[in-house]
Amino acid sequence: MGEWLRDGDHVLGLDIGGTKIMATVLDADLRVVGRCRKKSKSRKNGESAEGRIFEIVEEALSDAKNVKIRGIGVGSPGPLDPKTGVIIDTPNLGWKDFPLADILAKRYGVPVVVDNDVNVGTYGEWRLGAVRDCEDLVGIFPGTGIGGGIIINGRLLHGYSGAAGEVGHITLEWNGPYCGCGKRGCLEALASRIAIAKEIAALAARGDAPYIAENCGTDLANIRSGAIAKAIEAGEKMVEGVVRKAAYYTGIAAADLINILSPEAVVLGGGLVEAMTSIYLEEVRRAVEEHAMPFLRRNVRIVPAKLGDDAVVLGAGVLIAERLGR
Amino acid sequence: MGEWLRDGDHVLGLDIGGTKIMATVLDADLRVVGRCRKKSKSRKNGESAEGRIFEIVEEALSDAKNVKIRGIGVGSPGPLDPKTGVIIDTPNLGWKDFPLADILAKRYGVPVVVDNDVNVGTYGEWRLGAVRDCEDLVGIFPGTGIGGGIIINGRLLHGYSGAAGEVGHITLEWNGPYCGCGKRGCLEALASRIAIAKEIAALAARGDAPYIAENCGTDLANIRSGAIAKAIEAGEKMVEGVVRKAAYYTGIAAADLINILSPEAVVLGGGLVEAMTSIYLEEVRRAVEEHAMPFLRRNVRIVPAKLGDDAVVLGAGVLIAERLGR
Repeated sequence: MGEWLRDGDHVLGLDIGGTKIMATVLDADLRVVGRCRKKSKSRKNGESAEGRIFEIVEEALSDAKNVKIRGIGVGSPGPLDPKTGVIIDTPNLGWKDFPLADILAKRYGVPVVVDNDVNVGTYGEWRLGAVRDCEDLVGIFPGTGIGGGIIINGRLLHGYSGAAGEVGHITLEWNGPYCGCGKRGCLEALASRIAIAKEIAALAARGDAPYIAENCGTDLANIRSGAIAKAIEAGEKMVEGVVRKAAYYTGIAAADLINILSPEAVVLGGGLVEAMTSIYLEEVRRAVEEHAMPFLRRNVRIVPAKLGDDAVVLGAGVLIAERLGR
Repeated sequence: MGEWLRDGDHVLGLDIGGTKIMATVLDADLRVVGRCRKKSKSRKNGESAEGRIFEIVEEALSDAKNVKIRGIGVGSPGPLDPKTGVIIDTPNLGWKDFPLADILAKRYGVPVVVDNDVNVGTYGEWRLGAVRDCEDLVGIFPGTGIGGGIIINGRLLHGYSGAAGEVGHITLEWNGPYCGCGKRGCLEALASRIAIAKEIAALAARGDAPYIAENCGTDLANIRSGAIAKAIEAGEKMVEGVVRKAAYYTGIAAADLINILSPEAVVLGGGLVEAMTSIYLEEVRRAVEEHAMPFLRRNVRIVPAKLGDDAVVLGAGVLIAERLGR
């Protein structure tokens, strides 16, 4: 990080999620020197979402022996305006037109940069993780939803609205199942953890997935990536088939992105990919082979993410460090 | 054009197509002062493709009273390398690793810029046509095939391979009809003129499209955009239904591009759109309403191209003029 920060400088990386919030204090080499991670919603005495964030930031600072930080980078659910740091609408956190960057800048007296969490995760994988030596890349993160980040000519793509990169809402079956966005047949409706859990729950209900039936039951909330991976290890072929189909859909979206953007690399992360990496790599590569144009897909690297749960805090740290260094 | 060229300067714009080649000489205000347009393939005495191009360029120069040109801009079928001006593979013209820019630069002694024809057409619509006041836009051109161009932050997107923007090969039905690219269910396989003509030919063969049967027969080669438009005017509802479905597919691809790139405008051009503009605008806007995320689609302008057949020569003229002016 010597290019952006000087020895002794510190920054704070913040990952605000619907279920957890994580803050890390990073030194000039982007090593973690303090951290705090808590559930987003366990609020005491009606604590506000920003109160909860302050609490977590301050515990991370305290964990880092209260070093002085020079800036804060934030990954947040969107849509948001990366120019102003205003969160436009995140039902999970109850924010609407919420000036997150200004609120943090005022409380801590330092510059703040805010971007979409999946953009920031992709940025982390680009600067510090799996895809460091290229200028054009795409990140796809299948989990409870499916998010994506796009880097073109070494810069995050924001587009006119500021919210480009909604790869989870590429339409793969225009008359397909309903999606959380209200549309039909989006990648997310076909291949998110919820879409997979729905199919597997039906298998379990019919007696076709005994491992799942015994260990998770048929409630989608309990059919998590780790349990799905274990059911596959236990030999449940239909469960594996469901995951392979979802991974293949993810690969069709990757092929679309290759045809449109011609990236040098596609990085795959998120809970499903972490739990079942080889299935995802196989099916995504097969779909790209079958659905991307030969001239655009040749030499494209399709690789798993490396930073795991730290992608967003590290990416946020790099984003603010670069901003300070300019 | 005063920003790039000086009074008295001229450039040449060249549009190399599989069926026709057009050259225009443009003055410093990008007014056409000379032109020549001929079929690509009527070669005399085994004339080579480059010989045919020289002939057409020189007739355009002669038509412009042999003014001196300062540079040449070219739109060519791809894939090609816009950095070197090498055409990688265009079966229609018989070129493979063909150094088009170098060959033209050597013969005419001026700088040459070469880019994909649809990129250049999109660039023309951006600089001189339908979408002049924005920095992020997408062009979609449905015709015999379906091409597209993408402009991000005021620059044509080329990507890692140099050939980004293959919007005709977005997968809309992964198990759908075969496409010219060898894949299945691409936008082009579902919505190009050939895809439309195939459905309409079947209607005519069954007696469901008497205007088409009488005026075009059932040979796809004879079912052209103009005749299709006339059949619709004559009240052939099934023909209209086929076109509306193809236009809707085109709109789903536009929605995908909006979700991924968040452009400010989408410009629709090409033979089908020119012949049936209102149907295309209606169906594309409906599909975008139904398949793009609200936050990304709001305020997006969806407009018809303005420059018609001149989009590529004019875009090529601007490209080289800008290159010279830098």
